[in-house]
Amino acid sequence: MPTADPGLRPIADVARDLGIDESALEPYGRDKAKVRLSALESASSRRPPGKLILVSAITPTPAGEGKTTTSIGMAQGLRRIGKDACLALRQPSMGPVFGRKGGATGGGASTVEPSNVINLQFTGDFHAITAAHNLLAAALDNQLHFGQTAIDPRRLLWKRAMDMNDRSLRRIVVGLGGPGQGVPREAGFDITAASEVMAILCLAESYQDLRARLDRILVGYDREGGPVLASSAGVTGAMVAILNEALMPNLVQSAEGSPAFIHGGPFANIAHGCNSVLATRMALAHSDYAVTEAGFAFDLGAEKFFDIKCRSAGLNPAAVVIVATVRALKMHGGVGLDELTQADPSAVERGLENLAAHLDAARHFGKPVVVAINRRKEDTEGELAVIHAFCEGLHVPCATADVFGHGGAGSTELAEMVVAAADGPETPYRPVYDLDLTPEAKIEAIARSIYGADGITFTAGAQAKLRKAERLGFGELPICMAKTQDSLSDNPKLRGRPRGFSITVRDVEIAAGAGFLVALTGEIVRMPGLPRHPAAGRIDVDAEGTITGLS
Amino acid sequence: MPTADPGLRPIADVARDLGIDESALEPYGRDKAKVRLSALESASSRRPPGKLILVSAITPTPAGEGKTTTSIGMAQGLRRIGKDACLALRQPSMGPVFGRKGGATGGGASTVEPSNVINLQFTGDFHAITAAHNLLAAALDNQLHFGQTAIDPRRLLWKRAMDMNDRSLRRIVVGLGGPGQGVPREAGFDITAASEVMAILCLAESYQDLRARLDRILVGYDREGGPVLASSAGVTGAMVAILNEALMPNLVQSAEGSPAFIHGGPFANIAHGCNSVLATRMALAHSDYAVTEAGFAFDLGAEKFFDIKCRSAGLNPAAVVIVATVRALKMHGGVGLDELTQADPSAVERGLENLAAHLDAARHFGKPVVVAINRRKEDTEGELAVIHAFCEGLHVPCATADVFGHGGAGSTELAEMVVAAADGPETPYRPVYDLDLTPEAKIEAIARSIYGADGITFTAGAQAKLRKAERLGFGELPICMAKTQDSLSDNPKLRGRPRGFSITVRDVEIAAGAGFLVALTGEIVRMPGLPRHPAAGRIDVDAEGTITGLS
Repeated sequence: MPTADPGLRPIADVARDLGIDESALEPYGRDKAKVRLSALESASSRRPPGKLILVSAITPTPAGEGKTTTSIGMAQGLRRIGKDACLALRQPSMGPVFGRKGGATGGGASTVEPSNVINLQFTGDFHAITAAHNLLAAALDNQLHFGQTAIDPRRLLWKRAMDMNDRSLRRIVVGLGGPGQGVPREAGFDITAASEVMAILCLAESYQDLRARLDRILVGYDREGGPVLASSAGVTGAMVAILNEALMPNLVQSAEGSPAFIHGGPFANIAHGCNSVLATRMALAHSDYAVTEAGFAFDLGAEKFFDIKCRSAGLNPAAVVIVATVRALKMHGGVGLDELTQADPSAVERGLENLAAHLDAARHFGKPVVVAINRRKEDTEGELAVIHAFCEGLHVPCATADVFGHGGAGSTELAEMVVAAADGPETPYRPVYDLDLTPEAKIEAIARSIYGADGITFTAGAQAKLRKAERLGFGELPICMAKTQDSLSDNPKLRGRPRGFSITVRDVEIAAGAGFLVALTGEIVRMPGLPRHPAAGRIDVDAEGTITGLS
Repeated sequence: MPTADPGLRPIADVARDLGIDESALEPYGRDKAKVRLSALESASSRRPPGKLILVSAITPTPAGEGKTTTSIGMAQGLRRIGKDACLALRQPSMGPVFGRKGGATGGGASTVEPSNVINLQFTGDFHAITAAHNLLAAALDNQLHFGQTAIDPRRLLWKRAMDMNDRSLRRIVVGLGGPGQGVPREAGFDITAASEVMAILCLAESYQDLRARLDRILVGYDREGGPVLASSAGVTGAMVAILNEALMPNLVQSAEGSPAFIHGGPFANIAHGCNSVLATRMALAHSDYAVTEAGFAFDLGAEKFFDIKCRSAGLNPAAVVIVATVRALKMHGGVGLDELTQADPSAVERGLENLAAHLDAARHFGKPVVVAINRRKEDTEGELAVIHAFCEGLHVPCATADVFGHGGAGSTELAEMVVAAADGPETPYRPVYDLDLTPEAKIEAIARSIYGADGITFTAGAQAKLRKAERLGFGELPICMAKTQDSLSDNPKLRGRPRGFSITVRDVEIAAGAGFLVALTGEIVRMPGLPRHPAAGRIDVDAEGTITGLS
């Protein structure tokens, strides 16, 4: 039977540290709570907002970078040096937890807790998003069934959602069985993290904004190519009712008792990949330093964080942290996964090209940058010295942090550097592109400035979609690049710092509710499959009711 | 933004009334909590269990009977007359809430609260059941994809689940798109209430029992017709992890502050249709009178309550309440839905045949019975008198209760009668059939004794399935009859008390995990559709964040 972790503080105490009154909490068990949005208003009348620190990373490799672990450790480190810090992080998707990934709540001495619950259903937000998404799908198919919609069944874009890795649901045919069973048509499921409802919840500022965004989801086209919006299905009010509690940020704590808002988890390729705006606002409103992260590496996650999330919410980060590991740099330097245990400073040196590319990209946003080396016990001093020397040459502050082994105590130097960076003169918000550029020009700005591409190619289909988006009035939306996370280019095999490459945009989608155009490069899987030996096979519950095999 | 209903007591106070210590609670907001199973042990060392009162009803009609409202009002009435009473009820399924039904948490002055939350996602149990169900489905399709199972894709019985009315998902084809996308095969979704995982959760006595039942779900057959069990998919441990919190009963309160466990909601046709065994045990362990209900009318719900749930859990009710309304009796007496507002004592008289049939059926279980007339304001004294005279003639206690208009105060007479019935000499548990009979003999016993059928027909297919069930070792399982709820017969058009009819069993299913054989008469819809004008269209959230249109 589940029992509260005896090492965790009562969540009301954690809230009190933040100045959040117990009356603003909706407790979920003893160690987690939802925080009512009214807490934002009462905080803003009491204190100025804190400084926003974005944690990003180098290009991910199978070696792992530990961006979440570093974020958590750094927030703990900030508190160790006497600073008032609060985390704002994404919630892991349950599907991948059962697939290949296992848990995703940090590691070692730098975790958010109760990790087992956060990794599974937590406070039910993903389930609520799934249900709201599928109510819209059911209502649309119901309108087709009763002949109540002008939508062309072949142009119905809205799929169904499930928080599960289930490849068999990617492409399906629904409505079989005769005239009483709906209208037969091709359909499919995306994983919940890929639902536009997820992206919407993460960008919504209020219940009213949530409703307005749901209403303007583009669900398909009629036979003349005219747009059909979600509002026409008549269930967006019920969708908000389903999402009523899900919109409230969840408060938990790190292993060392640091406060953490864990809320929302959109894909970082076809969506913007950050925790909710409301969670970021909660962290900012109740602490001096709000530590947040963006999905994947700087080129994907941080670019979207600045150009989509910060623009939409009027946020302006004070500093950026880029996480690297010796292991990952070695992989970027050409070392294979099996050979990573051997010390190889020259491979690290070669791999630093990847870090350099992200540091160059970061310069476009004009924010102070700190490099965090997430130390692993097998790292050698020689390898670490190569990274430090490199950063010194660029005049970029760099700290080695042992967040896994020592938690906050292992990252006080990093915390000091981040405070120094964030406490400097305020820098203006500077996006990579302005919204009034053409979509092509926006995409080109990202590809050249952030990815380092030489050129950009649009397929005829992508161009037609962009013209359609403009005709429908969506030309001024920001761009959400759906690109492989494994390379700065659109070729996942190219590690390090690819040069002389061109990006191909093969398709474009309109996420009118979330408020961005998705530019697709390469094939993006929106519904993962389970591997040959799913992680679910190792998960169990022991005789005391404790979940095992998740971390 | 959601706010706690100011009229509700803190849930810890409600728990304290029951003798449940706050340390056994997992709060979900201020007004609902999950209760750890350890509370059962500590209660049993402190006090003897209370008496179990089953609330059933006459055959449902579109006029409505108000079984849940009467259960809630009666529990409130018991507390008004100084008795220590506690409710154990089913949780409404969210799908139908968006379809035709609206909410299902009682009505008027007899509701369980917070009704908006209970009607939607409550504490997430249905979502957890959906997820556990679908993890098993994904794992099975994954095994097919990787060629790791002997299961024949054409004989894979395990469907997917969703808590939504979505007819387009009834019959689908999954796995399309080529060799990377799974194995193409026919599949479908059932609504979550129809999931065997739901039935299992509602019959499970512990985490160990839950795991054992999940392991023995019959998910399909191999090419030789051999059984394939869920345990072979390797994810039943992870399913228990998903269900870790869902297994704990949920405690809420009625509008008058009476304690209520709301937990589980299996279909009452293809499953047994009662709240969880653990919720019933919680109510019994912590009060003198535990009031519970069974789905649909006595013939379906109460029969299964006795023959499946009570047998499985070793429960022995002290009294049975059968709810009737003047309106519904008039419909059984031949009056149309549009003419119900006219006083018609003779139609009531004719309709009493239906009540008589259920009273006859109840006699087989040997429990004291009380008839509760759920009064509506348009009922005339003349009509009510007809019912009272009828019951007097049979020496069955009968009380008129105005639970909708007056809550507990409107049902004190009913409460007194129920206490008198339940406080009589203990009666032994007596099922309608013994488990060592053949499946055919068990079904015949139900059809003749409870439905009043003259005979029973088994299709060749049903007979073959029964032989198969016996060969596989499932011949001694109890029977779960899947019959229309609208008639004592298997013809939904026959109201009142049909005579001279025969029941046809057209198919049989093996619910090996839940532990019963489902005998199907007629077509049972396991995935409802939305109506032409879904109730979801009336549900919204107002400017203050209050959900509207649900009750």
